[in-house]
Amino acid sequence: MAHYDVIIIGSGPGGYIAAERAGDAGLKVLLIEKEHLGGVCNNWGCIPTKSLLHAAKLYTHALHSAQFGVHVGDARFALEEAMAWKREVVETLRKGIAYLMNKSNVEVIFGEAACIDRSTVEVDGQRHSCDHLIIATGSSAARPPIPGLDGEYVMTNREILSLEEIPKRLVIIGGGVIGMEFASLYSQIGSEVHVVEMLDEVLPMMDRECAKLMRREFKQVKFHLGCRVGEVAGNTVKFTDAKGKEASLEADVVLVSVGRTPNTKGLEALGLDISRAGITTNERMQTNLPNVYAVGDVTGTSLLAHSASRMGEVAVDAILGKKSIMRYHAIPWAVYSLPEAAGCGLTEEEAREQGHHVKSASVQMRSNGRFLAEHGKKAGGMCKVVVDGDTEVLLGVHLVGGTASEMIYGAAALMESELRVREIKEIIFPHPSVSEIIKDALWALS
Amino acid sequence: MAHYDVIIIGSGPGGYIAAERAGDAGLKVLLIEKEHLGGVCNNWGCIPTKSLLHAAKLYTHALHSAQFGVHVGDARFALEEAMAWKREVVETLRKGIAYLMNKSNVEVIFGEAACIDRSTVEVDGQRHSCDHLIIATGSSAARPPIPGLDGEYVMTNREILSLEEIPKRLVIIGGGVIGMEFASLYSQIGSEVHVVEMLDEVLPMMDRECAKLMRREFKQVKFHLGCRVGEVAGNTVKFTDAKGKEASLEADVVLVSVGRTPNTKGLEALGLDISRAGITTNERMQTNLPNVYAVGDVTGTSLLAHSASRMGEVAVDAILGKKSIMRYHAIPWAVYSLPEAAGCGLTEEEAREQGHHVKSASVQMRSNGRFLAEHGKKAGGMCKVVVDGDTEVLLGVHLVGGTASEMIYGAAALMESELRVREIKEIIFPHPSVSEIIKDALWALS
Repeated sequence: MAHYDVIIIGSGPGGYIAAERAGDAGLKVLLIEKEHLGGVCNNWGCIPTKSLLHAAKLYTHALHSAQFGVHVGDARFALEEAMAWKREVVETLRKGIAYLMNKSNVEVIFGEAACIDRSTVEVDGQRHSCDHLIIATGSSAARPPIPGLDGEYVMTNREILSLEEIPKRLVIIGGGVIGMEFASLYSQIGSEVHVVEMLDEVLPMMDRECAKLMRREFKQVKFHLGCRVGEVAGNTVKFTDAKGKEASLEADVVLVSVGRTPNTKGLEALGLDISRAGITTNERMQTNLPNVYAVGDVTGTSLLAHSASRMGEVAVDAILGKKSIMRYHAIPWAVYSLPEAAGCGLTEEEAREQGHHVKSASVQMRSNGRFLAEHGKKAGGMCKVVVDGDTEVLLGVHLVGGTASEMIYGAAALMESELRVREIKEIIFPHPSVSEIIKDALWALS
Repeated sequence: MAHYDVIIIGSGPGGYIAAERAGDAGLKVLLIEKEHLGGVCNNWGCIPTKSLLHAAKLYTHALHSAQFGVHVGDARFALEEAMAWKREVVETLRKGIAYLMNKSNVEVIFGEAACIDRSTVEVDGQRHSCDHLIIATGSSAARPPIPGLDGEYVMTNREILSLEEIPKRLVIIGGGVIGMEFASLYSQIGSEVHVVEMLDEVLPMMDRECAKLMRREFKQVKFHLGCRVGEVAGNTVKFTDAKGKEASLEADVVLVSVGRTPNTKGLEALGLDISRAGITTNERMQTNLPNVYAVGDVTGTSLLAHSASRMGEVAVDAILGKKSIMRYHAIPWAVYSLPEAAGCGLTEEEAREQGHHVKSASVQMRSNGRFLAEHGKKAGGMCKVVVDGDTEVLLGVHLVGGTASEMIYGAAALMESELRVREIKEIIFPHPSVSEIIKDALWALS
């Protein structure tokens, strides 16, 4: 039985970053992966969706650039080719992770892990022991108790990423990030897309003002808000609408994207403290068991690839005796649809609930020179900033439009650095850039 | 003779922002503009070039997206329509500035200003007096002493922005930002483009490693480095090449972009301390004359729109008795070509010259998941970070590729916040995003 300083179960962005950091720090590390390096993020999540969304955006731009003097006589979206490119990207990045693991002296084995006790893990009948165990097993698409979700038309994020034919009609149950990204993708390439959402607005983590604008900018998508799905019968999604009326939609594909469930199979023997959300940890990613850590989606907290990676770093720091902690107040998120959206920190509603004396300001992106030049007069977009009126500390930045996903890290930096509004106003933003709108929004605070 | 708290000459990004801040602070402000609101930036610089460059990028993407599954049978670039859109953007933003001036109670008059003394300005025979004078007169394209630059084929950034026909052959004298942006624009839409540069590399403000990559990524453009132009004879640019050999290029259009000259006409009576570069100021934008300030290109320092705006704010702060100063160490810049480039802070060479114990690291963008997904396997791009090895302070960030221009403000924020490298590593960047490469480069520091 080989012995390791650290065994890590799961090679998603939580697991492989933890492995890299631990390996680079000189620890003897074993990384166990049941399927493909990179986990959901690389194989059925972030990376493949971004590849396809980018292709869809290129197609949309090709069709709609006449206002800028670019005329395209004939444009065609070949989904099977976009899917092939997506596979190539995924495989390239898998190899990249394998290269990194090798470079950091991390041993990798493939197979399903079963924890025997908190220092022994079995894979394919072989046992491995360790001083420290990091659980990074991730999450799977939740299957809510709706009759018919096992039907042949129903897919999750996983299966829909292998479609080779554009569905004529796509019904998406759930208007969160995953639902909105697929709605954007398929509506751009020709599907008739319906989103059925139980709540009264899409994108629940988002500031409501921004979420509303996002929904309105999805001009090709039909939204059914406040609707509760009762059953999927064959190709028909049956739901009760906001007024209590029964309604239904026929679909070629039904996508279920109503949340994620932590992957805790194989961990039963440990006696971990697990809630419905996931494995409970402290701010150093320690579980209730000594020397057992949990990172990423399986913790049920901040289900984002980059949160998982940071948690992995924090867990390794704990193992190394360093004192870093996981901070949750400045974690950016992004929706890679057209338009993009991104945010970091508190929404206005959250800030009020937390008792801040809130000041906020919103600026429309069409007032921004670069946005106007590149998106035309009709495109919508906005920036909203949320500030503590007493301390002048920036609490939240919310963006719709432009390359929001590439701008938002700067908001995380501003919030982590704890600069006050008047100090941020002294930072020089490049002109012309859409990013200037963040500063403009701060100047718009009354 | 009307009296003002502040008279501002020039309504570019230095002048109009100063006017807005001063007006909002309750000062009585007069803004004098000889031509169009927004100055060079809005009318013949930043904004029109970005409109056209965006159109060119859309055209390029339409032509070259087959690798992503997007096929375009027939694409056409209509320069006259792109120019019309550019005019619309420029005019919309001019109106936007007029609206802001009105909102901030700034009086605007159009006409050529002549300074009678440091508190009196004459426009069209009418005199106006003030307590404080802000000179924001900008710069014009330099015309070096090369015979033939007044010929009919020769243009500056101003005239070339009114072309309605794509030149078959464009020769650009000067490989700085302006030269490179027009090289990118016209090479994308079908011109044969040559850049003749006196130095041995393009983009002299850029880290050399990045500048070299930029040049190589301009695959359609022919560069003639280390070449000294001796004469423009009709449509022929004659130069001595790097080996001392005489050479020449014929052109339909010759663009001269070899620097800028401060606009000091009308200021002669004041007795300002003016060097060859421009008006000398201190860090509060004060000139040698009491109550006379200079901001923007006319100072000859940091010839960038956003630097001008910040200088305008600093000058108004000085007038208001606030103690802000102009800091030059974290001013971002961007080249909006394809690919884009941007930087902030010191290059590796500059950092060494300033005596830092320099650590630097470069990461190729193709290692970045989103960059790969969106740009394919052959696209070039990089991030380089420059750090003081003793203090772990970030000195410079340099980017080629992706939406560098929208990411770079975050680097300015990181540098202004004076976080150390280990603190920046704790900031969570969104995944997948090209922006993550900045963090990856910091992790790559040895």
